[in-house]
Amino acid sequence: MALGEVKALLFDVFGTVVDWRSGIVAAAAAFLEHHGAATSQAPAFADAWRALYSPAMEKVRSGQRPFVRLDVLHRENLEAILPAFGIEPGTVPEVELSTLNEAWHRLDPWPDTVAALLRLKRRFIIAPLSNGNIALILNMAKRAALPWDAILGAEVVQAYKPRPAAYLRTAEVLGMRTDELCLVAAHNSDLAAARGCGLRTAFVCRPLEHGPGQTTDLMAEQPWDATAPDLTALADALGA
Amino acid sequence: MALGEVKALLFDVFGTVVDWRSGIVAAAAAFLEHHGAATSQAPAFADAWRALYSPAMEKVRSGQRPFVRLDVLHRENLEAILPAFGIEPGTVPEVELSTLNEAWHRLDPWPDTVAALLRLKRRFIIAPLSNGNIALILNMAKRAALPWDAILGAEVVQAYKPRPAAYLRTAEVLGMRTDELCLVAAHNSDLAAARGCGLRTAFVCRPLEHGPGQTTDLMAEQPWDATAPDLTALADALGA
Repeated sequence: MALGEVKALLFDVFGTVVDWRSGIVAAAAAFLEHHGAATSQAPAFADAWRALYSPAMEKVRSGQRPFVRLDVLHRENLEAILPAFGIEPGTVPEVELSTLNEAWHRLDPWPDTVAALLRLKRRFIIAPLSNGNIALILNMAKRAALPWDAILGAEVVQAYKPRPAAYLRTAEVLGMRTDELCLVAAHNSDLAAARGCGLRTAFVCRPLEHGPGQTTDLMAEQPWDATAPDLTALADALGA
Repeated sequence: MALGEVKALLFDVFGTVVDWRSGIVAAAAAFLEHHGAATSQAPAFADAWRALYSPAMEKVRSGQRPFVRLDVLHRENLEAILPAFGIEPGTVPEVELSTLNEAWHRLDPWPDTVAALLRLKRRFIIAPLSNGNIALILNMAKRAALPWDAILGAEVVQAYKPRPAAYLRTAEVLGMRTDELCLVAAHNSDLAAARGCGLRTAFVCRPLEHGPGQTTDLMAEQPWDATAPDLTALADALGA
């Protein structure tokens, strides 16, 4: 595998490291039940919430609004979707909204994640390069025992992926050449942007990220520097 | 000990967590010897280099120059002191200057540091709040097995201690109230600035930070929330 000079593995987090959808569905089900709504709507609730994720970041990426951390965008998006589920945000106590919003801080890792990260950490610097803000990724890591060497990502570099600045400024912060970094992600588009900036790329397949009907990112769409079915196999392939 | 609501311990690094002077003296000695200068000058070299540390940051703190990371300031300061030791920076190969500058990335922890951090990490979020830049603190941690949960500090918040922004923006990044944070430092001035921002404070004594003739920070100068002879004792005091 052509990762000989790579010193740091940078990880996409939502979908690649943690199973965001199961966690958000569970949190949404509890919230909906508490508000007398059908818990069967929870998957739709999670998908609706996530559907606003990229458009919200796009306003920052395009320069329409200054950088704000993802917790803020998640909260705005949450309030935006509640009426469609029959709930007026103004009627919900603040602590309930903030607790639900922080469900993104309490996501569980995929079963292979923690053991594989511990192996990879012996050989590489490992750090998230996520659009999640520092507190979100740190709280998630503390709860789930994700053994990051540092918390990097959008908030550190004040730029959201897939803007080139998100990758290039991370290399600058690390004091490394871009080809000393490898992005690990379950998303071909993220890898394509990283490759465009000169990073090495590793695809891991997460066919259940979007639930049982997933149609995207079921396979590597380019010859990435590494392709593996999960993080355990990636650690094997990298000799970690 | 009145740290009941503290969720995160933030650590000063140079002097508190690592023994910067011994490491810089050793690196300076090797460099001086290689350039035909007396290795007996190494302690003076280390002290001269460190003497420019605070004045260089002051230009950023005062707004005279925009934020630049500490690696850049260290390098400027290194080139500034070399002539006093009979060495013209322009005659030294770039790789030697950058290697010497990165001696700050390769400092050893005090003997009690690693075991105490591992204990404290079980109960608190632990992170550096150092003026060192991310790569410096990360490389140091990787080499010395400092088990940080995240790398915070000046570069993340674009402000050098003891400016209030360094403490206040760190609380904001963590999504915590300032009284949920405790600064751990061997320097009374750092603790005073943190207390002024509402943080809790813990003093640990490092009587050899500046070598055998140290005259400063030999004792707590205010009734800090905790005072301990070293990090082991601090972990004991905090029940970690």
